[in-house]
Amino acid sequence: MNAEIIAVGSELLLGQIVNTNAKFISAVLADIGINVYYHTVVGDNPLRLKECMEIAESRSDLIIFTGGLGPTKDDLTKETIAKHIGAALVSDEDALRSIEDYFKKVDRPMTENNKKQALVLKGAVVLPNDHGMAPGMYLKSDKNAYMLLPGPPKEMEPMFSNYGRDVLLDALEIHEKIESRVLRFFGIGEAQLETDIIDLIDSQSNPTIAPLATDGEVTLRLTAKDPSAEKAKSLLDDVEMKIMEKVGKFFYGYDDTSLIVELFKKLQEKKLTIACAESLTGGMFQSDLTSISGASAIFNGGIVCYSNDVKVHHVGVKQETLDDAGAVSEQCAVELAEGIRNKFASEIGISFTGAAGPEALEGHPPGTVLVGISLPNREAKAFKLMIPGSRNNVRARAVKYGCHILLNELQ
Amino acid sequence: MNAEIIAVGSELLLGQIVNTNAKFISAVLADIGINVYYHTVVGDNPLRLKECMEIAESRSDLIIFTGGLGPTKDDLTKETIAKHIGAALVSDEDALRSIEDYFKKVDRPMTENNKKQALVLKGAVVLPNDHGMAPGMYLKSDKNAYMLLPGPPKEMEPMFSNYGRDVLLDALEIHEKIESRVLRFFGIGEAQLETDIIDLIDSQSNPTIAPLATDGEVTLRLTAKDPSAEKAKSLLDDVEMKIMEKVGKFFYGYDDTSLIVELFKKLQEKKLTIACAESLTGGMFQSDLTSISGASAIFNGGIVCYSNDVKVHHVGVKQETLDDAGAVSEQCAVELAEGIRNKFASEIGISFTGAAGPEALEGHPPGTVLVGISLPNREAKAFKLMIPGSRNNVRARAVKYGCHILLNELQ
Repeated sequence: MNAEIIAVGSELLLGQIVNTNAKFISAVLADIGINVYYHTVVGDNPLRLKECMEIAESRSDLIIFTGGLGPTKDDLTKETIAKHIGAALVSDEDALRSIEDYFKKVDRPMTENNKKQALVLKGAVVLPNDHGMAPGMYLKSDKNAYMLLPGPPKEMEPMFSNYGRDVLLDALEIHEKIESRVLRFFGIGEAQLETDIIDLIDSQSNPTIAPLATDGEVTLRLTAKDPSAEKAKSLLDDVEMKIMEKVGKFFYGYDDTSLIVELFKKLQEKKLTIACAESLTGGMFQSDLTSISGASAIFNGGIVCYSNDVKVHHVGVKQETLDDAGAVSEQCAVELAEGIRNKFASEIGISFTGAAGPEALEGHPPGTVLVGISLPNREAKAFKLMIPGSRNNVRARAVKYGCHILLNELQ
Repeated sequence: MNAEIIAVGSELLLGQIVNTNAKFISAVLADIGINVYYHTVVGDNPLRLKECMEIAESRSDLIIFTGGLGPTKDDLTKETIAKHIGAALVSDEDALRSIEDYFKKVDRPMTENNKKQALVLKGAVVLPNDHGMAPGMYLKSDKNAYMLLPGPPKEMEPMFSNYGRDVLLDALEIHEKIESRVLRFFGIGEAQLETDIIDLIDSQSNPTIAPLATDGEVTLRLTAKDPSAEKAKSLLDDVEMKIMEKVGKFFYGYDDTSLIVELFKKLQEKKLTIACAESLTGGMFQSDLTSISGASAIFNGGIVCYSNDVKVHHVGVKQETLDDAGAVSEQCAVELAEGIRNKFASEIGISFTGAAGPEALEGHPPGTVLVGISLPNREAKAFKLMIPGSRNNVRARAVKYGCHILLNELQ
């Protein structure tokens, strides 16, 4: 069983966007044991799309298309495929209803071309779109199987993970169970992590261990195959235990979690509220925290104290601290954390101050970050970090370090 | 003149990395007027690479390869191409010397397989690698032209920008100038925008007009070609004027800008400071604003007023407003905007309150958003929005609407 992914969209060929969809789908297919031999990108052009289809049909069993399912004139993937394989396009009632609901909700008139999005290949399994309008679909012909997915990643990714993957497992009668698990690490580099567990990586093929570094984190993806799901899981458990023996102190969570989600869960579990004073991060920690549904149980609010004036008058930093040590100092971070904790009557205060860059601040080079933590019945502390990279890398990484430090303090 | 980009590397097909090289090269080619009709990705497999080459030779004039030029066993792009087109591989003296220099510099012994990297196709123009070892090359045969570039983006990008692009301009004797411009719109859907200007899209091919929807915004990319750059620009001006007549009220900026950047520039230009009170957006507006270097000139800080208690005690919303109208109300948005403006001594106050979801709040469905604006010498106002989508879509879209509303108010 081998697959090819065809992305349709002139914006890809013009270099306006990157084909992240092919990467996402390929990683999922690798997990479930389907070999991907080709990615193709073709523009919004029916003739060239048809030619790419013919090439793909001759060399691949499964062809997955992304893009070109929208309402506009240059969205023509569905129509081109329908014509090529001789399938009719029929309106899908569920899809049409959800498009109509969308327009009612936003109180905008639904234009005629939006109905086009509800058309599906006759006989296809329809994949619901929980984050947009155009549904996906899967259709098997005598020789090939076709899956059509929308182009925007925020629609495509959940559709493929939640529906497309299962349809493929069913349709292809994959009986071997594939279990995978992602272990997430923070505070260790990819090269170091790999060095620490190189004997494990080299000595076995089931489960496989695949390291990946992204956004300052390192993940290990473990994938085990076995006719019995139980057995596959226990293979994962065994290798996880061996990995933890070596690098467990950097581990923070499984699969799709994140540092902020783990922090939220910890605060919820311990019934603690948190308040935040943010200088260089400018609200990012609080924005991340409130991106989680239910945040109001552990968070009342905080202050973005970008100027020194706000640090003094609204959070309670002493003027002499700023005069003597400056805003980029451990003392300032400590007073911000204590001040915000008191002002917002929370159990925990956390603060972020420092030099995000591109310029130095008060003589401190960009990337100098202080995280302040104030906890009940303990003296407030500051943690100093040096974070490399651009202004926004420094800010985002500072927020992750803040979560990581607080998680450790709460152990 | 049309081109195809073939990326060679099994790590792309396994979903371990994204093919950013194709985007980078495509954007440069679009600028110099070479049409890219296909991207292909193929693994480190000589047979499949050869088949991809044959397909590319039949449909594309120029074939650009990335990847597979390194020292290891599975780097086989050069060897496969040499065999396929019947060209000899010869050692390039400059390349060999720079590889030897590299090993002297890092004080490591040069292994035999590293010499392989200095081999180039006989007769090719050699492209120096200023950030790595493997040189690139360009070779023209009777029918096709071939360019080989290394895979790592930090080697490939400068090589292509500094050497590859000029070689192509020379070799292809390109005299026509290409000008492009992106117009950015907010507050109108892609289908509606296209409907409004469909006659323009249909009636002309120079400039071309390409709509693209991303993150609640719609862009139109205009591309004009003419032997004279002046003329190409004036073609863009003409069609831009016609577009603006129809949908100008939704236009907010050109090319790579964003709503928050436009707002920042406007505040800077008018020398106005802003303070912010955020409930449902939880700090996102302030985080976005402070992602811009120089934000301190127009922003002192603000409050994340997630709980009602913080709204009353730290921003100055009247308790009776919350009792009577609730937190998801125009009155609350107005008092938040006025309150934060006064407390933080800024010229402008902006506020965000509402129901982000997934649950309704105070009987208001998810997506109900109120943006409050308080300006000097004007009565504060609130704007009510209904934003569809997930919790985080609602929050992110609310921030964009806030920028858009304030930009309009400041006109």
